[in-house]
Amino acid sequence: MANTQNPVSMALGVCYYPEHWPEEMWPTDFARMKALGISQVRIGEFAWSRLEPDPGRFDWGWLDRVMDIAGDHDLGIILGPPTATPPKWLIDSVPDILAHDRHGQPRRFGSRRHYCFSSENYRVHSRRITHALAERYAQHPALVMWQTDNEYGCHDTVLSYSPMAAQAFRGWLAQRYGSVAALNAAWGNVFWSMEYRSFAEIDLPNSTVTEPNPSHVMDFRRFSSDQVRSFNAEQCAILREHAPDIPISHNFMGHFADFDHHALGRDLDMATWDSYPLGFLDQEALYSAEDKARYRRRGHPDFAAFHHDLYRGCAPKWGVMEQQPGPVNWAPHNAMPDKGMVRLWSWEAFAQGASLLSWFRWRQAPFAQEQMHAGLRLPDDTPAPVWEELEGIADDLERIGPTHPQQAEVAILFDYAAQWMIETQPQGRGFSYSAQAFALYSALRQLGQSIDIIGPDAALTGYKAVFVPSLPHIPEALRQRLAAFDGMLCLFPRCGSKTEALTVVEHLPPGPLKDIIPIRVEQVESLPADMVIAVRHETGCYNAHHWREQIVSDLTPLAHFQDGGGAWYASGNVHYVACWPGPDFMQLVVQDVLQHAGTECVLLPEGVRLRRHGDLRILVNYADAPVDCARYGGPKANADYLLGAARTPPCDLSIWRG
Amino acid sequence: MANTQNPVSMALGVCYYPEHWPEEMWPTDFARMKALGISQVRIGEFAWSRLEPDPGRFDWGWLDRVMDIAGDHDLGIILGPPTATPPKWLIDSVPDILAHDRHGQPRRFGSRRHYCFSSENYRVHSRRITHALAERYAQHPALVMWQTDNEYGCHDTVLSYSPMAAQAFRGWLAQRYGSVAALNAAWGNVFWSMEYRSFAEIDLPNSTVTEPNPSHVMDFRRFSSDQVRSFNAEQCAILREHAPDIPISHNFMGHFADFDHHALGRDLDMATWDSYPLGFLDQEALYSAEDKARYRRRGHPDFAAFHHDLYRGCAPKWGVMEQQPGPVNWAPHNAMPDKGMVRLWSWEAFAQGASLLSWFRWRQAPFAQEQMHAGLRLPDDTPAPVWEELEGIADDLERIGPTHPQQAEVAILFDYAAQWMIETQPQGRGFSYSAQAFALYSALRQLGQSIDIIGPDAALTGYKAVFVPSLPHIPEALRQRLAAFDGMLCLFPRCGSKTEALTVVEHLPPGPLKDIIPIRVEQVESLPADMVIAVRHETGCYNAHHWREQIVSDLTPLAHFQDGGGAWYASGNVHYVACWPGPDFMQLVVQDVLQHAGTECVLLPEGVRLRRHGDLRILVNYADAPVDCARYGGPKANADYLLGAARTPPCDLSIWRG
Amino acid sequence: MANTQNPVSMALGVCYYPEHWPEEMWPTDFARMKALGISQVRIGEFAWSRLEPDPGRFDWGWLDRVMDIAGDHDLGIILGPPTATPPKWLIDSVPDILAHDRHGQPRRFGSRRHYCFSSENYRVHSRRITHALAERYAQHPALVMWQTDNEYGCHDTVLSYSPMAAQAFRGWLAQRYGSVAALNAAWGNVFWSMEYRSFAEIDLPNSTVTEPNPSHVMDFRRFSSDQVRSFNAEQCAILREHAPDIPISHNFMGHFADFDHHALGRDLDMATWDSYPLGFLDQEALYSAEDKARYRRRGHPDFAAFHHDLYRGCAPKWGVMEQQPGPVNWAPHNAMPDKGMVRLWSWEAFAQGASLLSWFRWRQAPFAQEQMHAGLRLPDDTPAPVWEELEGIADDLERIGPTHPQQAEVAILFDYAAQWMIETQPQGRGFSYSAQAFALYSALRQLGQSIDIIGPDAALTGYKAVFVPSLPHIPEALRQRLAAFDGMLCLFPRCGSKTEALTVVEHLPPGPLKDIIPIRVEQVESLPADMVIAVRHETGCYNAHHWREQIVSDLTPLAHFQDGGGAWYASGNVHYVACWPGPDFMQLVVQDVLQHAGTECVLLPEGVRLRRHGDLRILVNYADAPVDCARYGGPKANADYLLGAARTPPCDLSIWRG
Repeated sequence: MANTQNPVSMALGVCYYPEHWPEEMWPTDFARMKALGISQVRIGEFAWSRLEPDPGRFDWGWLDRVMDIAGDHDLGIILGPPTATPPKWLIDSVPDILAHDRHGQPRRFGSRRHYCFSSENYRVHSRRITHALAERYAQHPALVMWQTDNEYGCHDTVLSYSPMAAQAFRGWLAQRYGSVAALNAAWGNVFWSMEYRSFAEIDLPNSTVTEPNPSHVMDFRRFSSDQVRSFNAEQCAILREHAPDIPISHNFMGHFADFDHHALGRDLDMATWDSYPLGFLDQEALYSAEDKARYRRRGHPDFAAFHHDLYRGCAPKWGVMEQQPGPVNWAPHNAMPDKGMVRLWSWEAFAQGASLLSWFRWRQAPFAQEQMHAGLRLPDDTPAPVWEELEGIADDLERIGPTHPQQAEVAILFDYAAQWMIETQPQGRGFSYSAQAFALYSALRQLGQSIDIIGPDAALTGYKAVFVPSLPHIPEALRQRLAAFDGMLCLFPRCGSKTEALTVVEHLPPGPLKDIIPIRVEQVESLPADMVIAVRHETGCYNAHHWREQIVSDLTPLAHFQDGGGAWYASGNVHYVACWPGPDFMQLVVQDVLQHAGTECVLLPEGVRLRRHGDLRILVNYADAPVDCARYGGPKANADYLLGAARTPPCDLSIWRG
Repeated sequence: MANTQNPVSMALGVCYYPEHWPEEMWPTDFARMKALGISQVRIGEFAWSRLEPDPGRFDWGWLDRVMDIAGDHDLGIILGPPTATPPKWLIDSVPDILAHDRHGQPRRFGSRRHYCFSSENYRVHSRRITHALAERYAQHPALVMWQTDNEYGCHDTVLSYSPMAAQAFRGWLAQRYGSVAALNAAWGNVFWSMEYRSFAEIDLPNSTVTEPNPSHVMDFRRFSSDQVRSFNAEQCAILREHAPDIPISHNFMGHFADFDHHALGRDLDMATWDSYPLGFLDQEALYSAEDKARYRRRGHPDFAAFHHDLYRGCAPKWGVMEQQPGPVNWAPHNAMPDKGMVRLWSWEAFAQGASLLSWFRWRQAPFAQEQMHAGLRLPDDTPAPVWEELEGIADDLERIGPTHPQQAEVAILFDYAAQWMIETQPQGRGFSYSAQAFALYSALRQLGQSIDIIGPDAALTGYKAVFVPSLPHIPEALRQRLAAFDGMLCLFPRCGSKTEALTVVEHLPPGPLKDIIPIRVEQVESLPADMVIAVRHETGCYNAHHWREQIVSDLTPLAHFQDGGGAWYASGNVHYVACWPGPDFMQLVVQDVLQHAGTECVLLPEGVRLRRHGDLRILVNYADAPVDCARYGGPKANADYLLGAARTPPCDLSIWRG
Repeated sequence: MANTQNPVSMALGVCYYPEHWPEEMWPTDFARMKALGISQVRIGEFAWSRLEPDPGRFDWGWLDRVMDIAGDHDLGIILGPPTATPPKWLIDSVPDILAHDRHGQPRRFGSRRHYCFSSENYRVHSRRITHALAERYAQHPALVMWQTDNEYGCHDTVLSYSPMAAQAFRGWLAQRYGSVAALNAAWGNVFWSMEYRSFAEIDLPNSTVTEPNPSHVMDFRRFSSDQVRSFNAEQCAILREHAPDIPISHNFMGHFADFDHHALGRDLDMATWDSYPLGFLDQEALYSAEDKARYRRRGHPDFAAFHHDLYRGCAPKWGVMEQQPGPVNWAPHNAMPDKGMVRLWSWEAFAQGASLLSWFRWRQAPFAQEQMHAGLRLPDDTPAPVWEELEGIADDLERIGPTHPQQAEVAILFDYAAQWMIETQPQGRGFSYSAQAFALYSALRQLGQSIDIIGPDAALTGYKAVFVPSLPHIPEALRQRLAAFDGMLCLFPRCGSKTEALTVVEHLPPGPLKDIIPIRVEQVESLPADMVIAVRHETGCYNAHHWREQIVSDLTPLAHFQDGGGAWYASGNVHYVACWPGPDFMQLVVQDVLQHAGTECVLLPEGVRLRRHGDLRILVNYADAPVDCARYGGPKANADYLLGAARTPPCDLSIWRG
């Protein structure tokens, strides 16, 4: 991983909306930012109606002044095209900008992200405003980074069922398949007489009587992801043309996989993401009711870490563009973070090598959709309760100095197309690719591991163990890398079960992996989440859920299902798990694989995590009881801690070298 | 409250549909009504297709005869324009009458209320039929009251997303704001580039990609309420022009707040409502599963009382236009009332000063949507099981004679705009303004209080205590009245948190109330309903739910949250509760405030309620065990009871003077 | 029942899609089928795009070869018009083929069944392709049966809200009522001014503001059912014209009642159905959570039997066209059948007199929507795990020889219109006609009964007991048959409560049945499923749910509700149950009625069923423990069993003569 080689310093940042506030507040705001240790300020990403109040009439004056004042305060500016919020006059003049929902109805103006990635007309305007912005500010001394658009895909906006999307999809298919006969064959359209005579006959896969052909859906998912990438690439090209040395970033989201972030990340210099530990805990079905209750005011202890590692694998550098600073407004319920947690989350970014940790937002806006979203300052410009937690972070960072990230010993292979395949063809309600990947990540973290999350094109060299959650399609290049890999390899069910077109592989699953592990999946079953599948192992009885495979193999299974079939196989350095393991079984498997890999394991208490970063060790405590660091390798003396002490209170952390 | 000053007699009434039955049945029906003690009969509100069978061709004959025969039997008629049910020929000739749903699709003919309040074309026809009816019957001797339309807003019909509504909304906004710049500023449209360049650019707030601007939604709610009021006012003006002395009523509904009933009520002489205790218990999420099970065949003991008090505050007189007479058809499940309950409900209207108690309907119709809705008589014209309960009520009313209502000692301030604000910006799923108001009302009733429910414009003079459920926006006039009020004032969370435009108040919440109680709400959190917020008070530990505020104040809190923040504050005569109290904490607060107010409290058993009405005391028993009235101030001797006796059986009531 | 008179032999069949596979596989496939004992193969029902790849250009060659090779292997072919899957070119050329959903939106191409039964344009093409197919193959020696279309109504396709449907509905109504005045009277359109002035004014009953007139809905349900029947009749007429001696079948579905299968069955020679015991168990709300857990890999022990008996009553012959062979893909969760279950299900068809048992499908397709649907062979053409279970069935059938079905002693009267009436006017959420019928069937089966399920037009002669689940409308002819019936008659609540137009009967319920049992239902109530209605009987206390009637009668009830009303009445040979009985009360009632009828009852263990078929007794074991057949009339010696032995293991069966 290229991005783990160079020393890293983490800048502190904040998101700021000068257009929301009287101009006379700007200098004070910038001065206070500086005093808090902030060095980078993101601005402008929603300001189109202020930059171009009428068609073709630009008003740069205010933004010029913002940039200048920021520069005067020695602050760097992160700036970007405001394409997430095209103004009303633009929508009215070119209505086909709007995306369409799955019923084919336009999604209208009145919030944000009201555009279709396939609207050629919108592409024209996206390039036009990007060009204007780049031309104006590329040389501004305060500019330190670009951000393209904002949170691609937020509010379910990757998939659009518009006529423009249908048109573009047909072209994309023609490009991909060459002939409609090839497409008919690849999709198996002979089934139910779905054969097409020309690309022009193909519609989007919505509003069908029953489920459409999964191959049809899968290609629509790929196409839609490609449209996001090409939209972004257009902005990047213009920005780079004007300012070749200014890095380009985009802010990704949590638990979101509707486009291929690995692919899009190739066009970025820095991947950032927006980290809202409490909002996501409440919103996502992935978290158990128990965890929701336990971590309501802290967030899940693996939420931020998982995404840090994921996006770290997407671009040369990475950071957090929006860090939750207090209660937000958009989750079903919006709790207050426990005292200390915002600071703790901020340090966790450091612990995984972030180049930027930027809080969202400077000051709570008193109006519009996010008026209940906390900021560092209250609407009346007094400091928010979180403020005092954040004072001192900059000094501590300065004191500790740059860090030297290393490749981890353990990797998880995460593939966006796998998520689309399983969403397209779940085969059992409740089977979630990302939930499985997250559960695996969490099990590894509970055993004290530091983890790289890598894409399907990444090199495997140097890892002691690679874990592969359900990856239906194994491209030939990956198959070769897996076959050549000499560390421990742990495959989960459904690996190798599908072709690229989302049809059943030749020779049955695990298809191309059959030479890596000699098994043959003859039958699978999906089960309700609350149905326990008992697994017997020499050490006792364990649970699985959701999924079970019936395997034929000459291998002796390491564990059996209650009724005798094999639940876990190993052959040389390769393991295969034939079910979705429950937490206990997951831990058994993971620990066994890690032992064979020769990595050190330490079972951490619930809510405690230990991260290795260069020569640093960072212990974070999401639990209710204090933790004695010495039990996990920490020094005895408080003085030996770079941050914190030998006893880490709840909602706090300790850092030492070791 | 003007309507509490004059002596009141309660007339008995019934809703009758002569057009459903052969003409030869009418005289017998009227004679039997008279014999049961009924004096007023509502007719005609759905009979448009019989009054105007073809465009412009009226058929008055049958209605003339109905009115004449009713008059012959000394019955008064309540009559109204049949505008809730425009006939098919009218819809076909003017399709833009139809309202549109939130997806922008027309809501079609085939049931009732299929019109958009903003359809100018429908306004023409509404005035035309109202004019024709008024002209024909204004002088008829049997006419005693008009009713406008029927159940405005039923079936979610206040909000319409039609092109006509969009057009009217733009005009309404132009009127309200004067300039689009003022609107942009008030709504904070700079956020997400939602700024408009003209009123013509503004759409209705539906089908947006994510939530629209809450200020946008809030103004649409206000506009929609105003449209109902102006529709009603047009009918009132025509009816008054023809018959200046005939009072005008409308029949409101239960648990319904989509338009401002206080505002609309100003155009009425009498507010009536339609009381279905069992239907609403089953239908509304507001009632706990426990209460649903306990009161399935009785209704919640505060359901009818709450609405009696609410609508009593809306117009000079009030009554019940439709009283549930047996099982109905429209709730998810439709239980049979326990024997005695229809009589008990009827007397509860008396206990709160109703001028009219009218049962719905005379006879169960054998056809169409309500064929399973009970009446006083069965479809075969035999008496329904309820019949014998109702015999004798008229004589008892006669015997007791007129009553002399008084202002209550305690008031709850209820504001329709508060409901819209909280629906528009709940901030936490499960936070319901009306549920909080109802829980508060119920807590007061369990302590034996008789309550006035007053609007935000009502005078506070004369009350010993005023309770204010979450009232986000405090207009200046109300602020002054609250500041001047010298009784006890109890404010609940979110009071004073918002401007009229639904933005955050200056100086943080409670904004304009900060001079009344010196606190400052720095942060709030919303929580799932099942998460307990522990509150410590000197008397023990209590529960709150849903909502918690973090307050800065020099006051010493009366109770604390588990983690130390204040949960309940008092300053002089003003109390502020910083959370949504659970039943036990609500009772603690309420009892404390009442004690300070010097009102007498008596803790009644579950399901028992005691009402003061003039010099009468009315005890109703919704519980399973008989109640000894002497424990609650009743006389020892049965002979001293105007109705019932010293021991009140379940599903029964007792009345005494005291 | 005509179809119980002649000796029956059960053929084994399979569904096969030669168009999915290379032509060189066909001979081997047919040879292997033959070797497994299969004699009939269904093909072609989805192959339109291969039969007519371009408009008007037919390609018969491949199908000619399939038929010839099948014939060469002595296999009979079941063939049918591919009208369930019109190809894209046809939809594009005639878009009004598409059905419309309840929001009025077209349901688009991309899966199957994308046509509206009311599209006259589609009727033209349906007749055209049927004619072409019939002309080509009517005389082919391999042809043994036709199948019309495929699974009429699957994916909710009976009801279409298209303009074509509206047009056809108006014609249907004009035919039915003669005058619009008659329709207005029958529907009670005077209610809410819903009166029409001409048939042209009548719309479909969708998108109304609140519920439409139930009479309107009910006629739309009848009309929609008639459209299915007439569509099918057109195919039948063409097929019969070309091949008068070839029987015609259609494949019905499980738990599906959107059209009248008794009516449509009159046009068939053989009713078949598609039996997926695991898929339906998981999918249907009808099964309790307990049963879903218990029978997840076996199916409910009455699922297949119920439908066998139901469809046996629909046509002269019956069979299973698609028998689940392993895990499928379309249920929420898709379990693997326990070993032995596919064989057991296959024999259950035999046990009830099937003429055909056909497995679906020969080989699992590797592509498209059903790629995860098991077949007898895996996608790589190796035998699926189920294969070995099925070997030997053919020989055993041969050995046992033809059977001689007899009329059962007990019948359940099942009426499709009853289901529509109760769906149209449930009056209480959770009241399900089919769930009640199934619960009754199950109670009878647990008492060892073999049952006929008969339609409302069937003769009652010869039955000892007839059970009638909630049948709202009793036509005069049925009333006469019920009155004349001298066996035991057991009526459930709501019987006789409605007219044909779905209005309340004259003289109150049970209306026309009042001369059969002297009761009068004055009031009904519906209750939530979890609310127990206690019933007292001399033998103890029992439970009812969902529904309770308040009855006036001179009869002494056999059981009372807790509060005193009668819960169960009997008068001579007629019983009436005034509630929805829970399992225990249902068993009490049923057992009592059977005793009076003089039929032998034996209480079987949970999961065990015993079927009489001619002189055979078939015991099937869905339970976990083995069963000793001698306790249920089986011989002592294993040698006396035609199949199985005296001790029947789980997932197995035993057959003996007795």
